[in-house]
Amino acid sequence: EEVARLLALKATLGGDAAPANQKFTLKTPKGTRDYAPQQMTLRQGVLDKIIQVFKRHGGEAIDTPVFELKVSGQSPTKLILLTLIAMQEVLTGKYGEDSKLIYDLKDQGGEILSMRYDLTVPLARYLAMNKISSIKRYHIAKVYRRDNPAMTRGRYREFYQCDFDIAGTYDPMLADAECVKIVAEVLDTLDIGDYVIKLNHRQLLDGMFEACGVPAKDFRAICSAVDKLDKSPWQDVRKEMVEEKGLNGAVADQIGEYVRLSGGKELVAQLLADPKLKAVPNAVKGLEGMQLLLNYCALFNLDSRVSFDLSLARGLDYYTGVIYEGVLKADPTAAGSPAKASPVLENGKAIAGGDQGAGTVGSVAGGGRYDNLVGMFDARGKAVPCVGVSIGVERIFAVLEAKFAASNVKLRTNDVEVYVASAHKGLHEQRLRVLNQLWDAGIKAEHSYKLNPKLLAQLQHCEEHQIPLAIVLGDAELAQGVVKLREVSTRQEATVPLTELAAEIRSRLKA
Amino acid sequence: EEVARLLALKATLGGDAAPANQKFTLKTPKGTRDYAPQQMTLRQGVLDKIIQVFKRHGGEAIDTPVFELKVSGQSPTKLILLTLIAMQEVLTGKYGEDSKLIYDLKDQGGEILSMRYDLTVPLARYLAMNKISSIKRYHIAKVYRRDNPAMTRGRYREFYQCDFDIAGTYDPMLADAECVKIVAEVLDTLDIGDYVIKLNHRQLLDGMFEACGVPAKDFRAICSAVDKLDKSPWQDVRKEMVEEKGLNGAVADQIGEYVRLSGGKELVAQLLADPKLKAVPNAVKGLEGMQLLLNYCALFNLDSRVSFDLSLARGLDYYTGVIYEGVLKADPTAAGSPAKASPVLENGKAIAGGDQGAGTVGSVAGGGRYDNLVGMFDARGKAVPCVGVSIGVERIFAVLEAKFAASNVKLRTNDVEVYVASAHKGLHEQRLRVLNQLWDAGIKAEHSYKLNPKLLAQLQHCEEHQIPLAIVLGDAELAQGVVKLREVSTRQEATVPLTELAAEIRSRLKA
Repeated sequence: EEVARLLALKATLGGDAAPANQKFTLKTPKGTRDYAPQQMTLRQGVLDKIIQVFKRHGGEAIDTPVFELKVSGQSPTKLILLTLIAMQEVLTGKYGEDSKLIYDLKDQGGEILSMRYDLTVPLARYLAMNKISSIKRYHIAKVYRRDNPAMTRGRYREFYQCDFDIAGTYDPMLADAECVKIVAEVLDTLDIGDYVIKLNHRQLLDGMFEACGVPAKDFRAICSAVDKLDKSPWQDVRKEMVEEKGLNGAVADQIGEYVRLSGGKELVAQLLADPKLKAVPNAVKGLEGMQLLLNYCALFNLDSRVSFDLSLARGLDYYTGVIYEGVLKADPTAAGSPAKASPVLENGKAIAGGDQGAGTVGSVAGGGRYDNLVGMFDARGKAVPCVGVSIGVERIFAVLEAKFAASNVKLRTNDVEVYVASAHKGLHEQRLRVLNQLWDAGIKAEHSYKLNPKLLAQLQHCEEHQIPLAIVLGDAELAQGVVKLREVSTRQEATVPLTELAAEIRSRLKA
Repeated sequence: EEVARLLALKATLGGDAAPANQKFTLKTPKGTRDYAPQQMTLRQGVLDKIIQVFKRHGGEAIDTPVFELKVSGQSPTKLILLTLIAMQEVLTGKYGEDSKLIYDLKDQGGEILSMRYDLTVPLARYLAMNKISSIKRYHIAKVYRRDNPAMTRGRYREFYQCDFDIAGTYDPMLADAECVKIVAEVLDTLDIGDYVIKLNHRQLLDGMFEACGVPAKDFRAICSAVDKLDKSPWQDVRKEMVEEKGLNGAVADQIGEYVRLSGGKELVAQLLADPKLKAVPNAVKGLEGMQLLLNYCALFNLDSRVSFDLSLARGLDYYTGVIYEGVLKADPTAAGSPAKASPVLENGKAIAGGDQGAGTVGSVAGGGRYDNLVGMFDARGKAVPCVGVSIGVERIFAVLEAKFAASNVKLRTNDVEVYVASAHKGLHEQRLRVLNQLWDAGIKAEHSYKLNPKLLAQLQHCEEHQIPLAIVLGDAELAQGVVKLREVSTRQEATVPLTELAAEIRSRLKA
């Protein structure tokens, strides 16, 4: 009747969809997925742990709309978005000349909107718009990229970003070091395997290119080639530099010497003594920054976790200082494909933008300092220096989902503490009374929505859903003002007065 | 330098945005807003309380993509969306003939997508797609409507919905009554003022129209007129029925007699004895349903909370049984406008779709039974009966934001427990050591990111941010292995050994 009415209405709409009685395939849009209760439980567990770390460091939450103004004489958002995208495209050589990765909304009259591409541009817009010059904010929300999805590896078109940023004019490296500490705390608390946090500095990279004799105009292009060292051997990267980007072979070889280096304080000292580098102010500034950062990291007990790594470049061009990336040492999801897994062990790193986890990648966190982005949104160009970190939660979900799938452990998807069962027919009103008593006492309880369910079916429900306790109602007991309280796993039963039920359940749950 | 590079790149893009040095106004899209930390704290507090209620009733969380496939030979989503929208438009007379309220994405090649309009259609798609025939799920997420925003009253184009639904083939009214109980628990726990939950039944409405002599083809139009009784007096509604919808005046007068009625079980009994109604099977079925529902509500101690109200119609046409709406008895945000506030006291009710809270409205929750929606998505038309409730959280946020604004109470926006301060210069490394010790012990701690902040500034920061404890480091104390622990509100200080610091802080925070 309802359906018939809807179909009649459909005719008046001239719908271009299939008729409701035709066979069709229901699906979610490309690169997106539903989260079933099991996945939600996992996801919420991960996010809760991350939020706990963010709050431990004084983070405040903000949220922004899922779309931003795109074309508007009053707003520079499109400029910023297009510019960032274009830079990323130039750097990675992966995309065409346009902002193909951005989801645009249809022009329906009024404003022209685009889905947010990350949480960093909205933060910059938020700070400039509200003239906020210092904040420690976290933002956990979905972002949208019309990329090629690789869903089994946690790479989606709709995916979570999980960002913590410190904005404000402060003394060097104090906030930067805290972001590195946050990465370590998050990866420790999530317990997803051994990891290393690679550190580098954009000024050092520029200084190093200068010292090697790269023309200034080619810095970005050469930096983009360096960024590929996580997936390609040096010979391929060198080839790109020389054959595609026209770099002098001898210059490339000098770069090759540097980008192979990684280590700790001793490496900084060695490079500060390097005759070529110490002649270049940018290189010296970068190295001094690294020295201070490594010093603070040592005070945070991170010596064994961080690695100063000259091959770390990171794609996004808005970074102006320290850059870092948290990389899992072994890729738990790649167990079945050793050929793919091995490069991860050495050089795991995310693609530009870095938060989805790319093909053969163990990168699960990344970030850096970007001191000029907010100023691009401000009418007077007032800069608000920022440093931040983004946790690659989709990658982490994928790792944990694979772990759980392999372990046969079944996550509970509800928190029900007590199931209220009938031993025989005609007890549904009694069940409602008992349930009401439990709910009002704050106890999580449920029952069958059938008037006369079978006892066996009710108890099986408890076992399947891992509900710890069951109450079994029966006329004989109710006549005496008592019920049976059953421990589902042991099947042990005790008789409990109705008046003491909530208290007894609470004490059992605590035990 | 960075900016210059970006501007150069902009030229190659031919951007249509204003140059970065021109004066512009930054803003969020129409009908949307940012959530600042203060608002996020409020919002998260509300959502946490609601989730607690949902979980108490065994709810499991799901999530779906923010957009759904729209045009596709393989998907009926557009049909469903368009049909629902069209019905709503027909009913309310508010909109044109097309689905203007839906945000469409631009066709960028590939799929054609629309932003989700509610969480009910995605649930139906999810259940049909995964062939799930029973679930108790909650879903808290943003939905999108290109409506006329009224932001001070909590009506946005991007807004939260907060839905709990019970799907499955069960015995009558058991799940329905639990949804009513959930509305009561949510409104109780949020403590936003006295409320009533109005109840009605779609079958009774249809039966009543039949009994009064409304032609079957006009049921929806007349139902839509009834739906306006919350905002308009009976005379206006009667006029619409007679003059616009061509109803016989005597028939309208009979409807007028019924829709003025509200009460409890005695009203059901009275109507079951009504000669006109008892001749109409639909009316009898609806009344018997109400009788059972009111009986279950009494077992849930809801007698004083529910009101059987024949004027309740609710806009959305997919309801097939019980409908209900939680209404605040007084509108706390309307204090300054008594002319607007008074009708709310009598007849507060949401517009169709009902979850945003309309102009002069006290509706904060609503829902009902919809047994045919899932079947519309299933290839074979397999129905999954559903009943659900949607909490109008935006309205609730607006009420609470107004309350807080009036009270001068400042919500804490961070959870920092201890601030680590320097009494004099040169102590930043000591601060980092102490902070590291606290963080590793799970204590929420922060400090200034300046090397040598003034002590007064540090202590003022604690007071402004309501941080309960401060540690003050000084060389004299550190030489003895102790620090000063200061209670910020009382300014009392105690000397604590560094080795006992975490334990001492934990015991202070518990006290």
